Amino acid sequence: MRTSEKTTTYRAAVVGGSGFTGAELAELLVRHPSLELVAVSSDTQAGSPVAESLPRVRTGLDFCRHDEVADVDAAFLCLPDKAAAPIAKRLLDEGTAVVDLSPDFRLGIDDYREWYGEHPHPEMLPGVYGLTELHRDEVAAARLVANPGCYPTAALLALTPLLALDVQDVVIDSKSGVSGAGKTPNARTHFCSVDSDVTAYATAGHRHYPEIVAGLTRGGGHPDITFVPQVVPLQRGIQETIYVRTAERPAADDLRALYAEAYDGEPFVDVCDAPPSLRDVARTNRCRIFPTVDERTGRVLVVVVIDNLLKGASGQALQNMNVMLGLPEQEGLC
Amino acid sequence: MRTSEKTTTYRAAVVGGSGFTGAELAELLVRHPSLELVAVSSDTQAGSPVAESLPRVRTGLDFCRHDEVADVDAAFLCLPDKAAAPIAKRLLDEGTAVVDLSPDFRLGIDDYREWYGEHPHPEMLPGVYGLTELHRDEVAAARLVANPGCYPTAALLALTPLLALDVQDVVIDSKSGVSGAGKTPNARTHFCSVDSDVTAYATAGHRHYPEIVAGLTRGGGHPDITFVPQVVPLQRGIQETIYVRTAERPAADDLRALYAEAYDGEPFVDVCDAPPSLRDVARTNRCRIFPTVDERTGRVLVVVVIDNLLKGASGQALQNMNVMLGLPEQEGLC
Amino acid sequence: MRTSEKTTTYRAAVVGGSGFTGAELAELLVRHPSLELVAVSSDTQAGSPVAESLPRVRTGLDFCRHDEVADVDAAFLCLPDKAAAPIAKRLLDEGTAVVDLSPDFRLGIDDYREWYGEHPHPEMLPGVYGLTELHRDEVAAARLVANPGCYPTAALLALTPLLALDVQDVVIDSKSGVSGAGKTPNARTHFCSVDSDVTAYATAGHRHYPEIVAGLTRGGGHPDITFVPQVVPLQRGIQETIYVRTAERPAADDLRALYAEAYDGEPFVDVCDAPPSLRDVARTNRCRIFPTVDERTGRVLVVVVIDNLLKGASGQALQNMNVMLGLPEQEGLC
Amino acid sequence: MRTSEKTTTYRAAVVGGSGFTGAELAELLVRHPSLELVAVSSDTQAGSPVAESLPRVRTGLDFCRHDEVADVDAAFLCLPDKAAAPIAKRLLDEGTAVVDLSPDFRLGIDDYREWYGEHPHPEMLPGVYGLTELHRDEVAAARLVANPGCYPTAALLALTPLLALDVQDVVIDSKSGVSGAGKTPNARTHFCSVDSDVTAYATAGHRHYPEIVAGLTRGGGHPDITFVPQVVPLQRGIQETIYVRTAERPAADDLRALYAEAYDGEPFVDVCDAPPSLRDVARTNRCRIFPTVDERTGRVLVVVVIDNLLKGASGQALQNMNVMLGLPEQEGLC
Repeated sequence: MRTSEKTTTYRAAVVGGSGFTGAELAELLVRHPSLELVAVSSDTQAGSPVAESLPRVRTGLDFCRHDEVADVDAAFLCLPDKAAAPIAKRLLDEGTAVVDLSPDFRLGIDDYREWYGEHPHPEMLPGVYGLTELHRDEVAAARLVANPGCYPTAALLALTPLLALDVQDVVIDSKSGVSGAGKTPNARTHFCSVDSDVTAYATAGHRHYPEIVAGLTRGGGHPDITFVPQVVPLQRGIQETIYVRTAERPAADDLRALYAEAYDGEPFVDVCDAPPSLRDVARTNRCRIFPTVDERTGRVLVVVVIDNLLKGASGQALQNMNVMLGLPEQEGLC
Repeated sequence: MRTSEKTTTYRAAVVGGSGFTGAELAELLVRHPSLELVAVSSDTQAGSPVAESLPRVRTGLDFCRHDEVADVDAAFLCLPDKAAAPIAKRLLDEGTAVVDLSPDFRLGIDDYREWYGEHPHPEMLPGVYGLTELHRDEVAAARLVANPGCYPTAALLALTPLLALDVQDVVIDSKSGVSGAGKTPNARTHFCSVDSDVTAYATAGHRHYPEIVAGLTRGGGHPDITFVPQVVPLQRGIQETIYVRTAERPAADDLRALYAEAYDGEPFVDVCDAPPSLRDVARTNRCRIFPTVDERTGRVLVVVVIDNLLKGASGQALQNMNVMLGLPEQEGLC
Repeated sequence: MRTSEKTTTYRAAVVGGSGFTGAELAELLVRHPSLELVAVSSDTQAGSPVAESLPRVRTGLDFCRHDEVADVDAAFLCLPDKAAAPIAKRLLDEGTAVVDLSPDFRLGIDDYREWYGEHPHPEMLPGVYGLTELHRDEVAAARLVANPGCYPTAALLALTPLLALDVQDVVIDSKSGVSGAGKTPNARTHFCSVDSDVTAYATAGHRHYPEIVAGLTRGGGHPDITFVPQVVPLQRGIQETIYVRTAERPAADDLRALYAEAYDGEPFVDVCDAPPSLRDVARTNRCRIFPTVDERTGRVLVVVVIDNLLKGASGQALQNMNVMLGLPEQEGLC
Repeated sequence: MRTSEKTTTYRAAVVGGSGFTGAELAELLVRHPSLELVAVSSDTQAGSPVAESLPRVRTGLDFCRHDEVADVDAAFLCLPDKAAAPIAKRLLDEGTAVVDLSPDFRLGIDDYREWYGEHPHPEMLPGVYGLTELHRDEVAAARLVANPGCYPTAALLALTPLLALDVQDVVIDSKSGVSGAGKTPNARTHFCSVDSDVTAYATAGHRHYPEIVAGLTRGGGHPDITFVPQVVPLQRGIQETIYVRTAERPAADDLRALYAEAYDGEPFVDVCDAPPSLRDVARTNRCRIFPTVDERTGRVLVVVVIDNLLKGASGQALQNMNVMLGLPEQEGLC
């Protein structure tokens, strides 16, 4: 885009720029026509140039400390659970619009306690759940938005239209790229542990499970859900194949129409006629969904793909911020 | 092994050495202490040295034509459906022990007709289904064995112990490496179609579906089955995550014991305490199975891994041949 | 970007949208603020919706035939050698600005004949060689620009500053992602041929060799060059490690300064202090270069990375078109 | 192989079973007909079952501590530099045949001091350098063998025949799979750092450089050597493209004959007519070499591939031990 036409209105900060989602957001922000990246914080890298460790982020900024982020219109929190809430509170009090990518505001207090422990600011719950397509109006009215987890984003976009039928039983087989495990090296993210392999994990329960349940409940559904995440040898992307029993078996055409109507006009959601591929959503904020009926059993199958770091994290965060600030929802995204 | 100790007894041939499974078998056979590789056929490569196109196969043989394969004790057919049956018939008539890796003898006549068309030799059906662990005695008594498909091998090893319970409903989410699609290049096997991606396919029905159904029926089960295969970016390996509703919810310990007992003493099947990885079975004839209970729903989960080219094809073919010839079952395999 | 602010001035076409570079260009063009994508041609897919086979290209256009492309201000030719030149001629005659991504205008007539055969329009040679950073003024003045090959782009950006010294002897060890081999499936692009492997090819001579020689000659150098391309298991990106003997051994600091000065102010070229990674240039138009001195031998080492489909093809094509049309050079690129 | 025929003669131990090379050796040893694996040590895992962390190693052994390894005929040391030498000394004193995979006995005292620091037992230097094909007789006579590094194994097998000519100038462009970096997770082995990338490293000097120089000197050559290692996105394998200036330009046929003669009858070295692929050596102890002449410059090109964990480490270690014990050199290897 023409630099001369950049009509920046808002000052924006990324709080927590050491990980994958913070880096992705910073990269999006330096290209955004209406948001100016004015701060990227990292307590461990404070003082060093951002562009040195993140060459894709074309900025002259140095990392600052988290507590130095102030005087901004918009903040994105890319921090671990429990670390995010206190900073969200401070920034909100200063009048900043906040999108929090941590789990701190995604769940009700009981679920939070069960899966994460004591919440630092329980009085701030429940938050506004920012699955933009499903909750656009609440997001527009909010000053603090809980950005959804990656698996739940894909699952809820794939399942919510089905709630118009009577959904009884759901199996979510999720495959995620390795960036979903974060940037900190460990035995499970070693190249030799991941390459040429597929590994199921967290079969006893994953923290995104209660978020998926809460999302479906919010939509009026109460199905029995099994959710199994798996790591596949790729960097970015989530594919979920979802198997659903509905009270009545839908016709394939009706099913297709149900989804087409649900996402009519949505710029970031495509309803497809064949199983989608990650290559069509990689490095975009898009979600592609293929709903079909297994003719032999009457089960509904839904295959969904997103880029876990964009629609599943930083892209959706920016989409939410665009909505919160009254900017065009697609601005700075593709 | 010491060459001097090789006590070869049987003359063996690979019919169809142009593809992945034929190459794999030829490589196994040159190292086998009791089988001597005396022929590798390929109508398209006849006359050229085997070791030139397959450097891993340390042999001085040239490829011959399929119809030149004769006077052998053991033959492995690595041919497409319908091409295998006539050659199987000829070799059987000559007294050769045959393991057929094609689908020609895996199904009953009706299923075969539905999924493949007219069978060239319907009078030869039904064949002996060579899932060795489940049908060892029939294999030992047979002169022609139908080697199972890759997906069914994994699925049936994972599901058969469960038939002791009342299995009602099965979802098989299968992920396969690209070698499962064969060696012929096409748009779906292009590196840029597969790398960094996960793609479901054949959602309207895959030819391994009737084989899985037949296998479970053989075991006494009649569940409702949904089977979705997916391609993942790796060369060899199949991982299946299988979701099962049983009439009664088993205790996790009982489930574990059920599998441990079913596969007690089996040299190629491991029952695991955590989701298995392909790296532990790659280039081996092993199968690793992790059965567990999803405590939230009572569903049984079974995760299973095999090398699709070995336990899912050429390795199991050799295992079957060892059994047919009265050799130690593990000979030449690891 | 805000759609409302799109101030489109120029009508643009991609001639040859079936391959990787055409798809990449079409995707760039739909987001470009000053160019409007009005045609994508493919003789084999004419009549079918572009977005169906290329979901990343958000357009309602159908593919047209090559000969239907007319009445456009800007055309990008993504065609094989010899097919491009006649279409370039027709469009030029119609007043269209043309960037040709084929090799048809990159070489002098003798080199072309040696490596490609008879040129369809020898009277049009020599073309303007569009390595933008090195030939910006000629590009600005041209109506037809020959877009450089992927390997030469990286090699010439890495080597040209060194011509200030007396370069005597050059070894270019190039590693390319598989997209460089094109979209047509063959044995060499099969996933199982590429994954987990590294393969040198064209050791007897690659068509990019004369282009590299011509580029260095244009810059005043006449070194002895060995160029070996290799395929590595990744989709997009070229890394070249280049080993250079110069008449006098430079000091490391002087070498660094030489490059810093050569690319001072260049928006798409970074001079680095450590070996660069493809992840820092993937899906961008950037080139990152690390020059250093092997202290043990006095040889200069230069490591360079680009995205072969962007700076090595479609990105640089758009960069050239921006320059030809007098638009900001970075417009629509990142 | 038939278990009944196993004629075990020697008791063998792996000292250091936590890393990649120790695991590989243990797996080789459980299948070896003449060596019995009686101990695998790991100070960090002592007391836990080997097969639990290394399911490919079919043994009932528990890990023991390094200092508990005693009373064995053969020991393989898979330990870091400086940790290996004292244990080598102890085991030698006990009469054990030792192959040391660490760098402790590969270099002369001066080189060792420059690249690793003070040697714990300088009186034991120089060791016998176990590049089997080049030093078979010394290995046969030794009780302690220094197993070569992975890069030097490939480089020296590729370069040694050329020393018959007058080699003046050598560039070694090496590409290694990630297992070469070891099993300990760090930022450089994170899947997202390696996948889809190629990265040069250690451009200021790699510890395998003096080993390559020493190896060529041992062979009578004194060329000027530049060696640049690079990481490529695969698990196991090294490919090196080597560029050599010789005093006189050889004819291509003579060059081929030179290599054919040098490796005539070698079971683990193939001289090829085209650039070799890693898939042909993966999980084998083989080395494949393609020598050719760059007709434009007269430079010799040599492309070589090995599996870095086998011929580049554990396989060659076993090959050496077979020679030391008077067993058939290929026993237990393929």
